[in-house]
Amino acid sequence: MSKLIQCVPNYSEGRRRDVVEAIVDSIETSSRARVVDYSMDVDHNRAVVTIIGEPHDIRKSAYAGAKTAVELIDLNKHEGGHPRVGAVDVIPFTPLREVTMEEAIVLSHDLGKDIADNLAVPVYFYEQSAATSQRSNLADIRKGGFEALKKNGLVGDRKPDLGPPTIHPTAGAVVIGARGPLIAFNVNLATNDMSVAKSIAAKIRSIRGSGEALEGVKAIAVYLKSRDTAQVSTNITLPHLTSMYDVYAFVERQARAMGVDVLESELIGAIRVDALIDSAQSSMKLPGLSKNRVLD
Amino acid sequence: MSKLIQCVPNYSEGRRRDVVEAIVDSIETSSRARVVDYSMDVDHNRAVVTIIGEPHDIRKSAYAGAKTAVELIDLNKHEGGHPRVGAVDVIPFTPLREVTMEEAIVLSHDLGKDIADNLAVPVYFYEQSAATSQRSNLADIRKGGFEALKKNGLVGDRKPDLGPPTIHPTAGAVVIGARGPLIAFNVNLATNDMSVAKSIAAKIRSIRGSGEALEGVKAIAVYLKSRDTAQVSTNITLPHLTSMYDVYAFVERQARAMGVDVLESELIGAIRVDALIDSAQSSMKLPGLSKNRVLD
Repeated sequence: MSKLIQCVPNYSEGRRRDVVEAIVDSIETSSRARVVDYSMDVDHNRAVVTIIGEPHDIRKSAYAGAKTAVELIDLNKHEGGHPRVGAVDVIPFTPLREVTMEEAIVLSHDLGKDIADNLAVPVYFYEQSAATSQRSNLADIRKGGFEALKKNGLVGDRKPDLGPPTIHPTAGAVVIGARGPLIAFNVNLATNDMSVAKSIAAKIRSIRGSGEALEGVKAIAVYLKSRDTAQVSTNITLPHLTSMYDVYAFVERQARAMGVDVLESELIGAIRVDALIDSAQSSMKLPGLSKNRVLD
Repeated sequence: MSKLIQCVPNYSEGRRRDVVEAIVDSIETSSRARVVDYSMDVDHNRAVVTIIGEPHDIRKSAYAGAKTAVELIDLNKHEGGHPRVGAVDVIPFTPLREVTMEEAIVLSHDLGKDIADNLAVPVYFYEQSAATSQRSNLADIRKGGFEALKKNGLVGDRKPDLGPPTIHPTAGAVVIGARGPLIAFNVNLATNDMSVAKSIAAKIRSIRGSGEALEGVKAIAVYLKSRDTAQVSTNITLPHLTSMYDVYAFVERQARAMGVDVLESELIGAIRVDALIDSAQSSMKLPGLSKNRVLD
């Protein structure tokens, strides 16, 4: 069994298909790592690519994708519903098989050095790769986005971990790190009233630590312009504690209390089969479904 | 890739653990086929074993399990909530990999001959292995159970396909056949009022072919004596058309209309990962989750 790691880079381009395809192409032709999924969203104006491979292959492919994004994306011309600081905005690594978190951290630091040295893009390390606890949370690093970094400079608590002391003029900065599995899960509401989505996202954030909490769930409200729809966009960072269905059911319940239905949900990237088992158990009051009973 | 077939024999014993373990043990020691799951239910008084292996191994192991069941189970002393005609009641085969339905049918006929010749148990072939359309439906063959066969004899439309012209005095008869994947899925209601479970099961059966139908779902009501609970016990025979969650949601909606909650659900045996994907899509209005996005 070879070592396997997952890398899910997010790029700030969700409208020009040729740009996203050029990024995916550079990833696939740079190593033996494989792109198992990619998706682009016109409203988030963002693409998410799921790459799986051995660590040395992932390092080459993630670098190649970053290089293409830096060349082809100009954040000064970018607008969309999702927070971002860079053309290649965030590059997370997750151990899959025979890889420790320590190795994933080393890989993230190596890739950060590659990007800082060769692409002149300042690098922030987050999550498990963060140098200090202030850097562990992506939302803190990304606060104000590219525009704030451009306006205020990379000073004080915005000093990057690696790379030049100023943002790249078109590609901004990049956030890199190792983390556990995460599920990117969005629920689209049957309304264009953003106050409903904002209130639900705020509720998910505020109940953290309380009895009814959705443990480890991050949530923001995003307006989907092309569909004129309000979205609750979430990251489930503790998927063994909170299932996709738990999030879905919470959002649906809150929305209905405001007289709004759920239109549909969206899963970005890949998930483990455990995530499906957890959702099945939660949605159907189904106890005790062990993985060995799920045949591929 | 070797040929793989699944066999899910059902035995009429759900109370004496030593008997079920003897059956499982004989299955596991007779060939290289593997038992991936087994469960026993005290109220159904029934055990379900999931075996996976190559066809020639499955033939040996399924025979060994049948032999042990015939030796250790006396249907004259058996009572339980589930219909049955035999100690080893039904032996279905489902192609998994590199096996055609035709091969599964041949295997079922071979096993039927083994059992008829060596164990003196009359054999009925059902589903894809049935000789006539009157034999394809398990419920028709099993109508009246062991007691009816014992009382009325194996005459007329009850003439077996193979084996002796009378039932085995203690082991009854056996139903064997090849079929597509099936999900055995039960929903337990928070009531002991069997009229609720019976009305829901009848509704599932009666809406077949209508617009709101749960396509390919068979349902019966079973009283769970040990838990004093009413159960809707279903087989989903077209899992690509109807998901577990579709069945769950239907039962929950019907029960609630009668003022009754769902206590929990139960999945018997193994399922394919597709079944989890289908349920996730249905429970969360989640379109387009392809299998290559599910990592093991």
